[in-house]
Amino acid sequence: MTILALTGGVGGAKLSLGLVHILDPHEVTFVVNVGDDFEHLGLSISPDIDTLTYTLAGIVNQSTGWGREEESWDCLAELKRFEADTWFQLGDRDLALHLFRTGLIKSGKSLTEITEIICSRLGIDYKIVPATDASLRTHVLTDQGSLAFQDYFVRLQCKPKVTKLEYHQRIPASVSPAIKIDQISGVVICPSNPFLSIDPILEVDEIRSVLVERAFPVVAVAPIVGDRAIKGPTAKMMRELGMQVTCAGVARHYRDILDGYVIDNTDSHHASEIEALGMRVRTAPSIMHTLEDKIALAGACVDFLDELR
Amino acid sequence: MTILALTGGVGGAKLSLGLVHILDPHEVTFVVNVGDDFEHLGLSISPDIDTLTYTLAGIVNQSTGWGREEESWDCLAELKRFEADTWFQLGDRDLALHLFRTGLIKSGKSLTEITEIICSRLGIDYKIVPATDASLRTHVLTDQGSLAFQDYFVRLQCKPKVTKLEYHQRIPASVSPAIKIDQISGVVICPSNPFLSIDPILEVDEIRSVLVERAFPVVAVAPIVGDRAIKGPTAKMMRELGMQVTCAGVARHYRDILDGYVIDNTDSHHASEIEALGMRVRTAPSIMHTLEDKIALAGACVDFLDELR
Repeated sequence: MTILALTGGVGGAKLSLGLVHILDPHEVTFVVNVGDDFEHLGLSISPDIDTLTYTLAGIVNQSTGWGREEESWDCLAELKRFEADTWFQLGDRDLALHLFRTGLIKSGKSLTEITEIICSRLGIDYKIVPATDASLRTHVLTDQGSLAFQDYFVRLQCKPKVTKLEYHQRIPASVSPAIKIDQISGVVICPSNPFLSIDPILEVDEIRSVLVERAFPVVAVAPIVGDRAIKGPTAKMMRELGMQVTCAGVARHYRDILDGYVIDNTDSHHASEIEALGMRVRTAPSIMHTLEDKIALAGACVDFLDELR
Repeated sequence: MTILALTGGVGGAKLSLGLVHILDPHEVTFVVNVGDDFEHLGLSISPDIDTLTYTLAGIVNQSTGWGREEESWDCLAELKRFEADTWFQLGDRDLALHLFRTGLIKSGKSLTEITEIICSRLGIDYKIVPATDASLRTHVLTDQGSLAFQDYFVRLQCKPKVTKLEYHQRIPASVSPAIKIDQISGVVICPSNPFLSIDPILEVDEIRSVLVERAFPVVAVAPIVGDRAIKGPTAKMMRELGMQVTCAGVARHYRDILDGYVIDNTDSHHASEIEALGMRVRTAPSIMHTLEDKIALAGACVDFLDELR
C-alpha cells in the first residue's frame, strides 16, 4: 500500500522533499503533472518531473526551486546568437537530461520508463511517475487567445487574462502503469497550482474516478495563504476565473475529492466555511522556507491521513 | 561564375580558409560533404558543415581543428552521469548549433536553407552549401561488418579494417539548389579524405557528371604527403583497400575528373607518374600550419585553375 502525492513543480516539490524524509520509498509514489510537457528545439521537456527529480536528487537550484545547481549557460548564450527561441531557460547541465530523455523517447520508451531510468541514474530510490504516458497538454484560454502552457507561463509570464483551462488529449489518457490504483492507502495533493498542476493530473479518468469513489482518505495542502498564492499565478488565475481568492476557494474547487484540507495557521478563520463543504480542516505552518518546514508540513499531512482512515 | 571548392572537415576547412582570403564571396562556393551527417541524441548533426562554418566564422577550436573555441563540457559531463552515449564530443556551445539546426529541420527547412541561415547568423558572407539536401550517408564496410560513418570514425576510432565504402541514399540525391551547375568556372578538390569526404560529394549524380564532362578546369590538392595522410585515416584506408599509398594513388582514384593535381614539394618524384594519368602537376608546400600556409596553397590552386582554363 502506498500514499500517492499529486504534485506539480516548485511548490509541490518542496512538500515532496518533506515526504521523502518521513516515508520510505515503498510508502509513497509521486504522481506528477505532465500538462506542462512540451517540445522545444526538438527536445522533449517535462518541467514538473524535472523539478521534482532535481529536488529529490539534491541537485536542484535552491534559489529558483527549478533547474540545476551550479548551472552554466553557454549553450543558451549561443542560441541567442542564432536568434533561436531562448525564452525557455535551458542550462547546459539541464540540457543533458532533455537530450537523454528525447533519445529514449525516440527509441520507443514510455515517459514512465524513462523517468524510472533517470531516477535510477540520479540515485533516487523513490518512485516519480508521470500521471500518464499519453499526450495530455494544458492549454490556457485567455484574452489573447488559446495558449499552449509554456507560451502562457514562460514566454508571456502569465500576463494574459485567463478565461478557461483546457486539457488536450490525443487519445483518452490512461493512468501510468506504474500507479497501482488498488494499492493506494491515501492521497496528498501538494500545494501546487490547481489549474496548471493538479487538474491536469485529475484529467486522467482513472485517477479522478478513484479519488471520487475513494476507499482511502485524500488531503490537500492549500496553495493560497491569506489572499495570495505562495508562488506563481494561482491567485491571479482564481481572480480571473471569478473564484474567491482564499484557501477556501481552492477547497471548493476540490470539494468532490477531499476528506481533509491543510490550511495555514493564519487562515484558521476560514475553517468553518471549508468544513461546511464536507471536509475536515487542519491548520499548520504551510509556508516552507527550510527543510524542517517541509518535513513538518509533510508530517502534518501524513498524520492527517492516519486520522482520516 | 564561381569556383566550387569540394571539402570535408578539418583538412578541407584549412584550405577553404585560405580561399576566403584571396577570393570574394561571389567567386567561390564551398560544397560540403554530408555523408558524415547523423542523428545523435535526437540532434541532427552535420560535422563537416559545422567544422567549415566554425572555421570561416573564426570561432573554431584552433588546436583540434573542429568544435568551438572556449568550449565548455558541462552537458557532456551530465550525459555521462546518465550513462548516455558520450562517444561524440558535444560541447555546450556546439550544442546550440545542433539544437538550432534540429529545430529548423523539424520546421521543414532544407539543409541548404538552414546552412544559409546559420552562416548569416555567424556573419559568414561566403556560401557554404551541403552537396545535397537528400539523405546521403557513408557506410564503411569492414572486418567488423557494415558501420555507419560515425560508428567507424568516432566510436571505433577508424580501427576496423576497411573493405569497401558505400553511400546510402534514400532517394537519388539531387544537387543542392544553391549550386548553380552552369555557373561553375573551376573546381578545387580540397585535401580531404577521398573516401569519406570527397567521394560522397561525387555520389551526387549531377556533381559527378558535370565534373566528368566538364567545361572548366578541376584541380585537387593531394591529401597524402610522402606515404602518410596529413591527417586522419586516409593512408590506412588506402592500404586496406589495396591502393598505392602515395599522392599518385589518390590521383589515380580521381583520374576521370582532374585536370591538375597539386602535390607537396617533397613528392615531386611522383610527378611523371601522375602526368601519365592525363593531368598536369604543380608542386607547392601543402602542409598548412599557419594562415599564411593556407593562403599560399589556396593561391597556388587558383593560379593553377587560371593556367588550365
